[in-house]
Amino acid sequence: MSRTPPHPTREQIELPMVLDCLSDPIRLAIVYQLAQQEPVSGELCCGDFNALSGKSNLAYHFAKLRECGLMQTRVAGTNRFVRLRRDDLDARFPGLLDAVITSAAKDADRLRLLSERDVVEAD
Amino acid sequence: MSRTPPHPTREQIELPMVLDCLSDPIRLAIVYQLAQQEPVSGELCCGDFNALSGKSNLAYHFAKLRECGLMQTRVAGTNRFVRLRRDDLDARFPGLLDAVITSAAKDADRLRLLSERDVVEAD
Repeated sequence: MSRTPPHPTREQIELPMVLDCLSDPIRLAIVYQLAQQEPVSGELCCGDFNALSGKSNLAYHFAKLRECGLMQTRVAGTNRFVRLRRDDLDARFPGLLDAVITSAAKDADRLRLLSERDVVEAD
Repeated sequence: MSRTPPHPTREQIELPMVLDCLSDPIRLAIVYQLAQQEPVSGELCCGDFNALSGKSNLAYHFAKLRECGLMQTRVAGTNRFVRLRRDDLDARFPGLLDAVITSAAKDADRLRLLSERDVVEAD
């Protein structure tokens, strides 16, 4: 039995659901943090986001991000790893993810987005 | 007394509110229709959207679009005219509005976006 939770296919990703998912400041912060990780492995462990919110609240947001097609979840033992579905999103909505991430970066202070330093300090 | 309803200033426009506002299919259709109008006057009369939904429902969506900063409303006699706040949005969130409109156009059938022909027929 696969322990990988269900993900929508590329064609099942819908624009209103993606925009709604991104309209939450914590989910926006998760997406922003994953985008910063893209030049490296693109993947982060769920525990890497503990500075953003409580565990059960984060689990809820991770599920929303997975169900709307923004994020891929991989289960490995007792760990869960997440990454942006960059190829699928860029194919479905060219330029949208980058525009949202650029806009979020511009408002990093207002949105209280964490820098890499903050993440390390919160460990 | 000015009859112009209140609008947020450019600096008061917030990314999560804009994304939330755009996550509704009817509001997305209104924005899309206004974007198609930009090469002409950029402005449409509220009645031009009657094919999208009922009048009171549309009034609610127009208010949401105005309050989040996506749309400018101008009152002239008994008419209300609306336009996208293109300059403000492009200054606050470069590329975002265009990416959303391009993505919506790509999914026009799924989102049941009206073509100009449909709008004329619905008059």
